Amino acid sequence: MGTSFFLAIYNVMTKVASFVSLGFIHFDSESEDPLYRQLYNSIRHEILAGRLKPGSRLPSTRGMAQELSLSRNTVVRAYDQLMAEGYLEGQIGMGTCVARDLPEEMLTVMGTKAHTELESSHDGTLEAKPILSQRGEAVMPIPYRWEMSKSGAFSTTIGEMNEFPTKVWEKLLISSWKNLSSEELSYQSSCGYDFLREVLATFLQTSRGVHCTPEQVIITNGAQQALSLSVDLLVNPGDQAWVENPCFNGIRAALAAVKAEIIPVSVDSEGLNPEEGIEKAPHARLAFISPSHQYPLGVTMSLSRRLQLLHWARQENAWIIEDDYDSVYRHSGPPLAALQGLDQSGHVIYVGTLSKVLFPALRIGYMVVPPDLVEPIHTMRAHVDRGSSILEQVVLAHFIDEGHLARHIRRMISLYQDRQSVFIEAVQTYLPGLLTVEPNDTGLHLVGWLPEGADDQVVSQELAQSGIDAAALSSFAHEPLVRSGLVLGYAAVPKLAIIQSVQRMKPILERCVNS
Amino acid sequence: MGTSFFLAIYNVMTKVASFVSLGFIHFDSESEDPLYRQLYNSIRHEILAGRLKPGSRLPSTRGMAQELSLSRNTVVRAYDQLMAEGYLEGQIGMGTCVARDLPEEMLTVMGTKAHTELESSHDGTLEAKPILSQRGEAVMPIPYRWEMSKSGAFSTTIGEMNEFPTKVWEKLLISSWKNLSSEELSYQSSCGYDFLREVLATFLQTSRGVHCTPEQVIITNGAQQALSLSVDLLVNPGDQAWVENPCFNGIRAALAAVKAEIIPVSVDSEGLNPEEGIEKAPHARLAFISPSHQYPLGVTMSLSRRLQLLHWARQENAWIIEDDYDSVYRHSGPPLAALQGLDQSGHVIYVGTLSKVLFPALRIGYMVVPPDLVEPIHTMRAHVDRGSSILEQVVLAHFIDEGHLARHIRRMISLYQDRQSVFIEAVQTYLPGLLTVEPNDTGLHLVGWLPEGADDQVVSQELAQSGIDAAALSSFAHEPLVRSGLVLGYAAVPKLAIIQSVQRMKPILERCVNS
Repeated sequence: MGTSFFLAIYNVMTKVASFVSLGFIHFDSESEDPLYRQLYNSIRHEILAGRLKPGSRLPSTRGMAQELSLSRNTVVRAYDQLMAEGYLEGQIGMGTCVARDLPEEMLTVMGTKAHTELESSHDGTLEAKPILSQRGEAVMPIPYRWEMSKSGAFSTTIGEMNEFPTKVWEKLLISSWKNLSSEELSYQSSCGYDFLREVLATFLQTSRGVHCTPEQVIITNGAQQALSLSVDLLVNPGDQAWVENPCFNGIRAALAAVKAEIIPVSVDSEGLNPEEGIEKAPHARLAFISPSHQYPLGVTMSLSRRLQLLHWARQENAWIIEDDYDSVYRHSGPPLAALQGLDQSGHVIYVGTLSKVLFPALRIGYMVVPPDLVEPIHTMRAHVDRGSSILEQVVLAHFIDEGHLARHIRRMISLYQDRQSVFIEAVQTYLPGLLTVEPNDTGLHLVGWLPEGADDQVVSQELAQSGIDAAALSSFAHEPLVRSGLVLGYAAVPKLAIIQSVQRMKPILERCVNS
Repeated sequence: MGTSFFLAIYNVMTKVASFVSLGFIHFDSESEDPLYRQLYNSIRHEILAGRLKPGSRLPSTRGMAQELSLSRNTVVRAYDQLMAEGYLEGQIGMGTCVARDLPEEMLTVMGTKAHTELESSHDGTLEAKPILSQRGEAVMPIPYRWEMSKSGAFSTTIGEMNEFPTKVWEKLLISSWKNLSSEELSYQSSCGYDFLREVLATFLQTSRGVHCTPEQVIITNGAQQALSLSVDLLVNPGDQAWVENPCFNGIRAALAAVKAEIIPVSVDSEGLNPEEGIEKAPHARLAFISPSHQYPLGVTMSLSRRLQLLHWARQENAWIIEDDYDSVYRHSGPPLAALQGLDQSGHVIYVGTLSKVLFPALRIGYMVVPPDLVEPIHTMRAHVDRGSSILEQVVLAHFIDEGHLARHIRRMISLYQDRQSVFIEAVQTYLPGLLTVEPNDTGLHLVGWLPEGADDQVVSQELAQSGIDAAALSSFAHEPLVRSGLVLGYAAVPKLAIIQSVQRMKPILERCVNS
């Protein structure tokens, strides 16, 4: 940090005969700090280190300036600052001394770890590891990282960004910013921007069969916040909650935070089995499901199971959180309506996100809650973080209202369908006997089943070393699964890269599967 | 909703002799739903109402089309959708019937509150009020609304937006959006955008005397999220927490959520008094303070008290949350350094926001945490909502880096200083004996003291009816205060409006004070 030199050992005898040693005053000629600031730092440091005692007199500004060859103004500024902050007292010209009310014993304690402000980094390391709350400890072990390989194959975190209508979004950004009023730049409703709630209500009604008024639509900071708000608001420590096995890890964190008991319920070709749930925990407080396109297995919950689940929730006065994960990407057959549309007694909280449809860093999700929950969620959100930033909500509202979202989804459906076909063909061609995939009507990923006996965690780790993200199916499980597999996202990978990446998997799978 | 008419009571005897009454099929000629969708809705509704029993046969698509005078294609689409969703089974042409696996008793239950999808709003009202969690119940009573009067006088929620450098922000919005990479549009670090953390670290070091590396800076969704994350991570139910009396209500919600015991500690002209805190709750887990400019009283905590507080925190291994509320707006004298800069043992969590410096709807705040807390906060945030939206973080980073923030603050300081003078003069001129205000070196608001015996809640309510936002000082108190007063924000009110608003307060204050 450049040469630093000691200017002077400065001792001065003041009129009232108290003796002060200013000790080492540091000036760093290469520092970006102005001289007055360096002088301020040196004196402050001496006081905090307990070497300049409370009550001891400092030289006059004129005397100090002469001795240190500084302009008097520099010294005055440093003294002013030190007086304003309570380190010095007295009036300039009348004699200045170290503030008498400083608790000396504390200064000495500070001094044991004294450091100067010229050091660039903070040495405030706790003496002991921080003690976290029970809530804190409970969520620490839950996995949450999204690191993508350079190739992007086969992460499930994002769709194809090259096809995003960047220009349209930019146009809307500019017009939305220009049209924001002063009132809109102030605090907004914690439920979100009203026009966005309106257009989302219409979008969800028509495309997903969701039954709601705009008031029931609440904008969140991604789907994860919808989960954490719902669970915080409705689930007590010790309450039981059904989750699909395997399932999306986001709900685990939300449930762990409130110390709920997680009840894993098997998923088969008809989705989560409510009968098993009722057998294991008949009085559970909540069930978390992804009925349209189960994450990660991709199955659709049958109508019969949906009705059973709703019947149970109504009888037990339990809540159903419906995560409508990537269901808009259905490429064959008509879209299936949301379970929420079947609910007639207000027990379903419908959750969605635009992270996969637009982009994750947008951090806009939404929930549709029964009318009686609107006000409690509103209050909860206000206390958690007040609400979401307004600008991108406005942009998104117009993006939907002008039909860009529907157009974008239509384009991406056909792109993702193509990529799924290429992916399946590549797996069948290059990985026979090593990985089994089946077509799925919707979504951005498939489960690749491994041969019996293969450890998907090992396979996943080996693939990661070759730059391929393939999450182990078992990492989404709460209880051991019958088969092991990999969760493979093809949506963000161009066709050629899909084929090359599948080819690259071959030697690794051969090694892992046969060992 | 237009005229709706009943097309037919449609009865048909099928080949296998099971008799089906399709009941009332509704078509609404003015509905935006296509005919196939209306047919789908009618049949689905009959099934869910239990009037079309599982196993009963429907007419062929051809037969249905003829009877209803629809194109066969319309009927095929409706049947297709109903089969995809599991309401019908069988193959078209071979005979179609209501799915046999539908649980009949549940359909009947659904039927008791049956409604058609043609209704625009959801009737999913809970039979009983929703039962909230203990956490939910605990935060519900805490006040959180920010409604601004039309005049904007004298709300404390926002600064003067007309002076915001809108054009600069717009330019940065465009360039930031254009330069975002695909990777940056994916999930980001929950700690925030790295470049923003860097420039904020520098800004806080130079302008606030905060000691930190960029890694210690964590971007949050406003200061409120910083409070709620910290408390959730560090405070257990039953733990004691010192708060200033009176104090910012945001911390109350965060502490109520974890069922902490709030210990109010008096604030005098030197700020919070640690000796009183130690007497009331020596082993408290946390102290919440706003030392630079106490909210709402506006006092600055003395150096001696700061050292006492730090000494206590170190001895008890307790946490200090330092809310550095609007401290950058100091207009006279040098800025006072943050308490965090005195902390040498890592017990201070420093919290700030850009809501008052830029605008509240931006929802960007920050916290500076000791190195050992970075990873736990990172994890906690990931589980709560993954992180903040990226675009405005990028914009803000460049706004700071290019010097616009410092320039904007300088301009606003002089504007707010002027407005404070006008406000004080107006109060002294028009409200003598009714309201007492004293100048303050910093901030966007002042406390106006009421004469002895006046009830500030009543005064506040009366003023609100005349369009003047003047929060009652007692609404920030946990224990009765010695004096009653009003919290009056002058920053967003032009000079003439300040004078007019003060004049408008006169008859109301006279009435309230003398009654």
